[in-house]
Amino acid sequence: MRDFNERLKRLPGPDRASADAAAARQQRLTKPPGSLGRLEALAAWLAAWQGRHPPRLDRVRIAVFAGNHGVATRGVSAYPAEVTVQMVANFRAGGAAINQLARATGAELVVIPLELERPTADFTAAPAMSEAELRQALEAGADAVEAGLDLLCVGEMGIANTTAAAALAAALFGGKGADWVGRGTGVDDAGLARKAAAVDAALALHGGALAGRSGNPLEALRRVGGRELAAIAGAVLRARELRIPAVLDGFVSTAAAAVLAKAQAGALDHCVAGHRSAEAGHTRLLDHIALKPLLDLGMRLGEASGAALAIGILRAAVATHTGMATFEQAGVSDKGR
Amino acid sequence: MRDFNERLKRLPGPDRASADAAAARQQRLTKPPGSLGRLEALAAWLAAWQGRHPPRLDRVRIAVFAGNHGVATRGVSAYPAEVTVQMVANFRAGGAAINQLARATGAELVVIPLELERPTADFTAAPAMSEAELRQALEAGADAVEAGLDLLCVGEMGIANTTAAAALAAALFGGKGADWVGRGTGVDDAGLARKAAAVDAALALHGGALAGRSGNPLEALRRVGGRELAAIAGAVLRARELRIPAVLDGFVSTAAAAVLAKAQAGALDHCVAGHRSAEAGHTRLLDHIALKPLLDLGMRLGEASGAALAIGILRAAVATHTGMATFEQAGVSDKGR
Repeated sequence: MRDFNERLKRLPGPDRASADAAAARQQRLTKPPGSLGRLEALAAWLAAWQGRHPPRLDRVRIAVFAGNHGVATRGVSAYPAEVTVQMVANFRAGGAAINQLARATGAELVVIPLELERPTADFTAAPAMSEAELRQALEAGADAVEAGLDLLCVGEMGIANTTAAAALAAALFGGKGADWVGRGTGVDDAGLARKAAAVDAALALHGGALAGRSGNPLEALRRVGGRELAAIAGAVLRARELRIPAVLDGFVSTAAAAVLAKAQAGALDHCVAGHRSAEAGHTRLLDHIALKPLLDLGMRLGEASGAALAIGILRAAVATHTGMATFEQAGVSDKGR
Repeated sequence: MRDFNERLKRLPGPDRASADAAAARQQRLTKPPGSLGRLEALAAWLAAWQGRHPPRLDRVRIAVFAGNHGVATRGVSAYPAEVTVQMVANFRAGGAAINQLARATGAELVVIPLELERPTADFTAAPAMSEAELRQALEAGADAVEAGLDLLCVGEMGIANTTAAAALAAALFGGKGADWVGRGTGVDDAGLARKAAAVDAALALHGGALAGRSGNPLEALRRVGGRELAAIAGAVLRARELRIPAVLDGFVSTAAAAVLAKAQAGALDHCVAGHRSAEAGHTRLLDHIALKPLLDLGMRLGEASGAALAIGILRAAVATHTGMATFEQAGVSDKGR
């Protein structure tokens, strides 16, 4: 993974000229300065990371990665593992929440199943992935992103993956299983205890190799993550390299992307958090990587659903930024007292 | 205004059968129960108040009411009073923020200027409106609503109207000027002090007649409100009578609608708060009427902009509710452990 760490050191930065042009235009639009709140900052952020002014959102892609997890055998989910492949079929048939959300906001949806018939190893007993498997998953994520996209939303599906995300979060930022696990799709108290125990077992097994201790976030991703988490990290990194702003979804997506932030400060500057998930660990994760979510609607579905819902806010930011008249054009007085 | 108070006593309630049908369908859709958070509740709320299942959002109207205020002469705004009429022209020409937001979300926009050439009286010296003027403004609001709409969003434009809203909020819920005024379009410290002083002067003048003391919210609206605030109250009431759910905007719109809630408990049950405005008094108002905003993006523009942005969330609620496959349809296992 030397190549991966090298790439993280050569990330492109924001285009200050485009951001400045956006900020200057905001001052001339027919509204009190700052009165559109975060919409104004979002327009400048899109300009900065797209490297153009005005920004646009013509091609928006939602990428949903699916993976299966060995740790599912430890009773950490309210649903059986076969639901992952069933839900991928549901995505393909157009029946899932993300299909409706993508259509409603005019985004293209791509679904990438990652060797569902071959779950990762149970990380309470062994590393979840080999180095080759990790690399393949990272590349599968990168391959879901292409030049010409104006925005990328990342999300996931994978029975047991909130346990993997909790283990990864603990590996990256410290704490025990109980600090990071939540109800996920709806486990009962016993299931919640099994999730915490699985994370603690993973922390005990992989101890010295984990990032909080060893400073190698990618190794944490390999040992306690999963294929769809690795794919998200790969996709978010490729988006940065291609100057495509990205929207993170909930707990699992954010844990995956946090690998990049932990490996290289500023690596998620091209990202916004689409929403705050009801999964308690998400708020803690967002605090660690200093992202303030756009929405807070008690959602906890995954599938990029929270990210997809945030697209409407970004579209509003672009629509107001590009479509509003200036004070001069509209003949409106902008003289403050 | 006896007629108005009579109408408030005969408000239609929610259609429980439609709400129950929506809740039952949510349980069968291919997602863990509750995982779409507020989207699930919003689908049921729309069904309850539209009185049908499934709910729909084909005809969405945004009504923006504009008024001028005598109190503007007291230096309470960062902008001169002529901006109200200039902004109405901007709305008509399609150059304002709300035009872009309405187009982006597929809503129709109606703009209703209310005798802009004849500002209300300065309420620090006299009642803002006569009884006839209040009645006309209430009716103008009601006339902006018609049967067949699936959703109504209300908003306003009016230089100095955050001062009127602060006075009205104080009249309805108690407190002094300083408790309710904010920066509005961007006044400096001296302007903020003038706003607080204007509200305090109004409270002193109208004292005994005001609702917090007399229990007559409509009289408070007449004495310290304004035409666009009265129109919003009239529109929200008519929406209820026609079984049209409504979305409130920010501080001014919420203060206007709060007149109904104060006059009759439950009168705003058919409303959601589109967002939390950056105007500090808005949070306090929302607490008083027990509405939890859908968005919190630091906006403070008015024009129904926050309500318009929330339409996308409601559309997502309807799209997922109506478009998703059930577990049976998709062949997805819903057996929890």
